[in-house]
Amino acid sequence: MAKINENYLKLKASYLFSDIAKRIRAFTEAHPDARIIRLGIGDVTQPLPPAVIKAMHEAVDEMARAETFRGYGPDYGYDFLIALIAKHDYGARGVTIAPDEIVVSDGSKSDSGNIQEIFAADARIALTDPVYPVYMDSNVMAGRTGAADERGRYGGVTYLPCTADNHFEPPLPDRPVDMVYLCFPNNPTGSVMTKPALKTWVDWARANGAVILYDAAYEAYIRDPAIPHSIYEVEGARECAIEFRSFSKSAGFTGTRCAFTVVPKEVMGRTASGDRVPLNGLWLRRQSTKFNAVPYVIQKGAAAVYTEEGQKQVKALVDFYMENAHIIRTGLQAAGLAVYGGENAPYIWLKTPAGLSSWDFFDKLLNEAHVVGTPGSGFGPSGEGYFRLTAFGSRAQTEEAIARIKTRLSR
Amino acid sequence: MAKINENYLKLKASYLFSDIAKRIRAFTEAHPDARIIRLGIGDVTQPLPPAVIKAMHEAVDEMARAETFRGYGPDYGYDFLIALIAKHDYGARGVTIAPDEIVVSDGSKSDSGNIQEIFAADARIALTDPVYPVYMDSNVMAGRTGAADERGRYGGVTYLPCTADNHFEPPLPDRPVDMVYLCFPNNPTGSVMTKPALKTWVDWARANGAVILYDAAYEAYIRDPAIPHSIYEVEGARECAIEFRSFSKSAGFTGTRCAFTVVPKEVMGRTASGDRVPLNGLWLRRQSTKFNAVPYVIQKGAAAVYTEEGQKQVKALVDFYMENAHIIRTGLQAAGLAVYGGENAPYIWLKTPAGLSSWDFFDKLLNEAHVVGTPGSGFGPSGEGYFRLTAFGSRAQTEEAIARIKTRLSR
Repeated sequence: MAKINENYLKLKASYLFSDIAKRIRAFTEAHPDARIIRLGIGDVTQPLPPAVIKAMHEAVDEMARAETFRGYGPDYGYDFLIALIAKHDYGARGVTIAPDEIVVSDGSKSDSGNIQEIFAADARIALTDPVYPVYMDSNVMAGRTGAADERGRYGGVTYLPCTADNHFEPPLPDRPVDMVYLCFPNNPTGSVMTKPALKTWVDWARANGAVILYDAAYEAYIRDPAIPHSIYEVEGARECAIEFRSFSKSAGFTGTRCAFTVVPKEVMGRTASGDRVPLNGLWLRRQSTKFNAVPYVIQKGAAAVYTEEGQKQVKALVDFYMENAHIIRTGLQAAGLAVYGGENAPYIWLKTPAGLSSWDFFDKLLNEAHVVGTPGSGFGPSGEGYFRLTAFGSRAQTEEAIARIKTRLSR
Repeated sequence: MAKINENYLKLKASYLFSDIAKRIRAFTEAHPDARIIRLGIGDVTQPLPPAVIKAMHEAVDEMARAETFRGYGPDYGYDFLIALIAKHDYGARGVTIAPDEIVVSDGSKSDSGNIQEIFAADARIALTDPVYPVYMDSNVMAGRTGAADERGRYGGVTYLPCTADNHFEPPLPDRPVDMVYLCFPNNPTGSVMTKPALKTWVDWARANGAVILYDAAYEAYIRDPAIPHSIYEVEGARECAIEFRSFSKSAGFTGTRCAFTVVPKEVMGRTASGDRVPLNGLWLRRQSTKFNAVPYVIQKGAAAVYTEEGQKQVKALVDFYMENAHIIRTGLQAAGLAVYGGENAPYIWLKTPAGLSSWDFFDKLLNEAHVVGTPGSGFGPSGEGYFRLTAFGSRAQTEEAIARIKTRLSR
């Protein structure tokens, strides 16, 4: 019988959101009349911007005529989209990124899950705790960790705990690592990193020969003009950082799928014998071998985000969700809860009251308020005792959820 | 400095089609007036079927309204699409496949490149030679091979040569292997496998505990009613085979991206200590961790393929390309070339004349006829001395390419 990748068997239980779905199903079967409000999964609810809709219709029409039909696209994305990304996401912020440093993909989940493939099987990783589970699970599957202990921590991984005690700012690794995953604005804690703090990380990475895998999927939610949107706004980052960006949360592409990854040519890795190898070429090779580009229709939709109307519409979308974040944040504070995030991020991170575990608070919120959130412990051991709500609901649902929490949640 | 995955450095040169693109660019710069006809990459040219266009427009409109907007879709594909696949692609041929054995993806390139992840790092692979490069390269990247020798064969791999001498029928592996990649109708040779021949493979796999990774991306081109479209038409295949299918070549989705993989629950792998593990669960876990489903708009387009109009339109598309295949096949034969394939497959495989190497024939065809094909050696050492043309051009271009080959190619 064929030998399997036994690293998969180290993975704890099933994926977080599947577990949540199961508990919701069980609750719904027991309470068929309950109107559940979901502020759990970070999924948008507002329609695609009109500029995107228009561009997608036009692109579908192009696919209907032989003269304008598009087959296989360029492996790394269409030039028209890459040029817009380089100009608007980077040039406009004073950052120079070359077109061949940008690789368009179907999502930051895929990219942040696949990026580890270009590193050695015994490369050492560091992650914040709590963390987006994909960073961890993709490395477990690749065999870069030992088994999980009873707290859910895998052997051989450097965890960087982020709690209220350190204001959710990850400490620098206290031992050598090859790669560190950072996500700011952070999922799940909603925290951000100032430019000086990010500079400390870039300096550390350069001094220690580590690569920072920087997930900036939520940069559109930054309100404070002092907070960097890209790690490349920090001097030296081109030598040590790979950045992930997405249209999912800015333009509502969670069900439409478009993202990109930036790998500057200066970022180097090394072979066991010490030869320097640019990571840009390795990532391009990975993508051209195992991926076949994003649908033309979708890339046209993404490009429309950068039109004048598109930019206005995306700003309105983000403003809408950030008003939700404000409603949640202030409402929970009024309900006496300790609340973090939600000011430069669509995530509100709260301390569970009365020392409840994350899953106990999940059940309490579901049972008493019929509101679904995400247990902090699902993001790692240091998330235990915390809970995530998201700003992606409709206005009416967000307001009702907060009203229910204020009135129904037993103390 | 971070340690890289050195297996990438074993990969020979760059990806086949990039090399071809480079030679075309050089030729075009030297001969700016030449009208090049490309029958090289297996990329379709005809527009998407009207039923697909209509469904995609409707889906785009759904994305424009909050009430019908779709965010994250189900990890494994929408039920509406999976049910249609189970019914039309399998039920209609007397094969029962359960919905949770079907995983919708963005392409057979991704799936056939990623499937190796669920097998052990030291699992032994067998591949036909010539072969679609993704099967090989994805295993090289995963470290399942040694270095390449001067012929381009990687150490530790069991190659199954397919040449005119054995009628392009791969011999059974002569040593134990864990996985074998089979693609029928074959890319690049255009050969097919009869049901008795496929039964021999299934019996061998069951007797030897191997898994067959069966790429059926070209099944829509089968004309002979005796040739199986799915490996599951063969008794026992549910215990030993994973099947890849795609909308790329049937419905013209090369730039639209939708495919699926079938992993029956009976297919088992084993741990080093001998425990049996269903591969279905491993693949589901792989996809739910590192992939985030196909765009809703695209899945709606794929579902429209199964409507009555969609089926008629896809049949007309395939008939159109198969008439091209007939034109190429008979034209090349009239030009005195030895020709294979093209009767149940969109690929025509020809023996290069006068003992020319594949790349020399590529240059000759480009220089004399301004026609681009694919050198057989790009698909493996046993492809040396062969050359691939595809039936995916327009009618006018196909006819002109063959006319040029007949009249301009020097003997």
